[in-house]
Amino acid sequence: TSSGVFLLQMGWGDLGAFGEPSKETPNLDQMAAEGMLFLDFYTANPLCSPSRAALLTGRLPVRNGFYTTNGHARNAYTPQDIVGGIPDSELLLPELLKKAGYTNKIIGKWHLGHRPQFHPLKHGFDEWFGSPNCHFGPYNNRERPNIPVYRDWEMIGRYYEDFKIDLKTGEANLTQLYLQEALDFISKQQASQQPFFLYWAIDATHAPVYASKQFLGTSQRGLYGDAVREIDDSIGKILKHLQQLGISENTFVFFTSDNGAALISAPKQGGSNGPFLCGKQTTFEGGMREPAIAWWPGHIPAGAVSHQLGSVMDLFSTSLSLAGLQPPSDRQIDGIDLLPVILQGKLIDRPIFYYRGNELMAVRAGLYKAHYWTWSNSWEEHGKGIDFCPGQSVPGVTTHTQQEHTHLPLLFHLGRDPGEKFPLSFASEEYQRAVERLSGLVQQHKATLVPGQPQLNVCDQAVMNWSPPGCEKLGKCLKAPESDPRKCSWPH
Amino acid sequence: TSSGVFLLQMGWGDLGAFGEPSKETPNLDQMAAEGMLFLDFYTANPLCSPSRAALLTGRLPVRNGFYTTNGHARNAYTPQDIVGGIPDSELLLPELLKKAGYTNKIIGKWHLGHRPQFHPLKHGFDEWFGSPNCHFGPYNNRERPNIPVYRDWEMIGRYYEDFKIDLKTGEANLTQLYLQEALDFISKQQASQQPFFLYWAIDATHAPVYASKQFLGTSQRGLYGDAVREIDDSIGKILKHLQQLGISENTFVFFTSDNGAALISAPKQGGSNGPFLCGKQTTFEGGMREPAIAWWPGHIPAGAVSHQLGSVMDLFSTSLSLAGLQPPSDRQIDGIDLLPVILQGKLIDRPIFYYRGNELMAVRAGLYKAHYWTWSNSWEEHGKGIDFCPGQSVPGVTTHTQQEHTHLPLLFHLGRDPGEKFPLSFASEEYQRAVERLSGLVQQHKATLVPGQPQLNVCDQAVMNWSPPGCEKLGKCLKAPESDPRKCSWPH
Repeated sequence: TSSGVFLLQMGWGDLGAFGEPSKETPNLDQMAAEGMLFLDFYTANPLCSPSRAALLTGRLPVRNGFYTTNGHARNAYTPQDIVGGIPDSELLLPELLKKAGYTNKIIGKWHLGHRPQFHPLKHGFDEWFGSPNCHFGPYNNRERPNIPVYRDWEMIGRYYEDFKIDLKTGEANLTQLYLQEALDFISKQQASQQPFFLYWAIDATHAPVYASKQFLGTSQRGLYGDAVREIDDSIGKILKHLQQLGISENTFVFFTSDNGAALISAPKQGGSNGPFLCGKQTTFEGGMREPAIAWWPGHIPAGAVSHQLGSVMDLFSTSLSLAGLQPPSDRQIDGIDLLPVILQGKLIDRPIFYYRGNELMAVRAGLYKAHYWTWSNSWEEHGKGIDFCPGQSVPGVTTHTQQEHTHLPLLFHLGRDPGEKFPLSFASEEYQRAVERLSGLVQQHKATLVPGQPQLNVCDQAVMNWSPPGCEKLGKCLKAPESDPRKCSWPH
Repeated sequence: TSSGVFLLQMGWGDLGAFGEPSKETPNLDQMAAEGMLFLDFYTANPLCSPSRAALLTGRLPVRNGFYTTNGHARNAYTPQDIVGGIPDSELLLPELLKKAGYTNKIIGKWHLGHRPQFHPLKHGFDEWFGSPNCHFGPYNNRERPNIPVYRDWEMIGRYYEDFKIDLKTGEANLTQLYLQEALDFISKQQASQQPFFLYWAIDATHAPVYASKQFLGTSQRGLYGDAVREIDDSIGKILKHLQQLGISENTFVFFTSDNGAALISAPKQGGSNGPFLCGKQTTFEGGMREPAIAWWPGHIPAGAVSHQLGSVMDLFSTSLSLAGLQPPSDRQIDGIDLLPVILQGKLIDRPIFYYRGNELMAVRAGLYKAHYWTWSNSWEEHGKGIDFCPGQSVPGVTTHTQQEHTHLPLLFHLGRDPGEKFPLSFASEEYQRAVERLSGLVQQHKATLVPGQPQLNVCDQAVMNWSPPGCEKLGKCLKAPESDPRKCSWPH
């Protein structure tokens, strides 16, 4: 059985099936109606790079190295000047799937490091079409090079130069390119009758948000909605392609997001986290709970709904299981195999850990969530208009200083209060019972935790994408400045 | 064609089909899947009595008298000591439907006045099982009588005495009684082959929230969720009954709510308004936008979705249309006939007016909404812990003083910003264009508005439910105190 994972930045509330009022995602809604909707599914971190590293390794970022110790509880990712990346010691899903004869392709944003040793084809992927970093820009190629777009080992151009994004109109045809890549890859794999793993990690809904001309202006929601509509349309086409090729019953497909909607970019470039608190960058539900749909016609009963606490890391274990492989036994794997949930409707008791950088901020088990630390962002940043919780403010919860609650965690019942607005009374029996259980889980987790070498501490302008492999053929090699390694700055 | 209206207090976000994360409303979700989901449907007022008066008259509360002039922009309803009620001059839907041979029944809360002249059987209903007021209590029958429950012309008992509600456990079997009444009425009408209008106006989700024993503790959402589950189950049974009797294709059924979820009662007794701002009592979307589903097998295409701006007042005009009747021509009717929307997928351009008492607070046309006044509640009330927007605060929008914006309305684009968090810039062209249109609609509306005699100004302890008709037979007549008419107090 082949596997496909759609991973993009979208909020829990961005899909019609999850209650977005414009209801403009007919294809994703249809995918849910034919498959299984996960309502309690989480990313491993409220930010892109660590989430993606967690998905591909089945391990929390604090284990696989995708975190920083430069500051307490800081979000970190892989900008152009990051020195680190995915360590060779980590075993990635495609590396393991190769043993079962899979061909693996990543389309879109890799985000696990851009220096040569971190190249996705060195970590199990056979093919790549996409970029190592976010499509920020345009840059002047002097202080900072434009981000390269790779085909397999070599770059074939740069954003804004060869792969246009019009920041004024929001027009870019990139999603169409990524769609065509996916359709072609699937056709090729079907023809060769080989199992495959396709990781479709596109980023049209990540600021700067973009959409193709035929989608611009078509959404009630503005440019962000246009991007969502194009992605929805593309996913519909990919699923239809699987069906037309007759391989949909042999292909397990999962749709989810790497972090909650970036409310900081709202309303024009940010999505919706539905009824949840705050957004990307935070460990409130809005930052971590994700839309999620499993699709596998003939196996998953149509219209199924699951309250299984799930994680992007489970896609690692589940995809291995589908391939008949065991997860590695020499290391801690945080993901679980979701097949019993998906195929037999089981509910597996397991906690969800909410990390921000090097700190365990919160934990959920069952319907209870305890916050051991709260922080939205600093007063200083907030004063500059950086707001991860626009229009929302829960006293003592969405704090602008890092508040420690380890001795008396803030407890929420996410069934009665999904919006984390009403902490339970410390004096209640319910509080005592729930916190005892949750704190036990935390203790156990911390006792066995072996943190990985932090990869996101050191930045250096010399390591930016000045001269990626293939630049000579294109005449696009740039001169790197002197090496000047320093601590990366992670303000939130 | 018969008509059925389910009206209850529920928030936009309380149904699975509208994105409630627990997804515990399989029957309502199924109703939506078989019918038409309205995503932009509104009540006529963010409070119960005026909404209900508007539904049954097809007219805004400011026209039919269900408002107060005791204070500016105040919410008012029909408590026990209200002197007013629905004026005889108003023509109610059941009065009109009688001309087409309909039998009309109200089950549940009437709320249009409880003095003899306001009795529902004097205003077109043929049968009644339910109560004139909210099920507040228990009272001691000295300062205040317990609320009576009527069967047709006479009371048959009182809440807490004969119709138990256990405030401690939340147990009450009232929804089951209301369900059985509905099933029996439908059976009887089917047997007699007469068209009918059933108005199922139950109130289990109104504080004090209650559910029957078999539903208690069954929801992830606590007691409120238990009540929702029981209502969902009941509606499923009513729809199934229509199908089993073979009259579902001759019965138009509509589900909606009289106001947004009462966040003041959250988390235990209050629901969810999904991604919208604030709740009941306010003219933000959370107070006025309602879940809405039209169901009419064989006529409405299954799984239809409409963005028609709809109103509870449209149920008046639509039900008349279904009966082959014209709305009265001697008065202004605010409702429109939704049949072209429902049957042909048309979109009718019409504004939505957001009133709070005697003040037009806001108006919506297309995707634009302009606030001419903003107010959540007073600082004084807020200081006492009365919060209509818990966890939400939008500077300059969720104001605690009544802020006038008539010269420079606050403008929101509800597609890009359904949560009303990002007012458009006054300087933008988009603002100018939209406000010009909206303010034109307001001007036109105000120019032709003839306010009704306000019914909710005067309160008197002597008019309470001391001795409702039928009390003698039950030995439940109470002595009324001296008449002491005074201005009702409407703090918000």
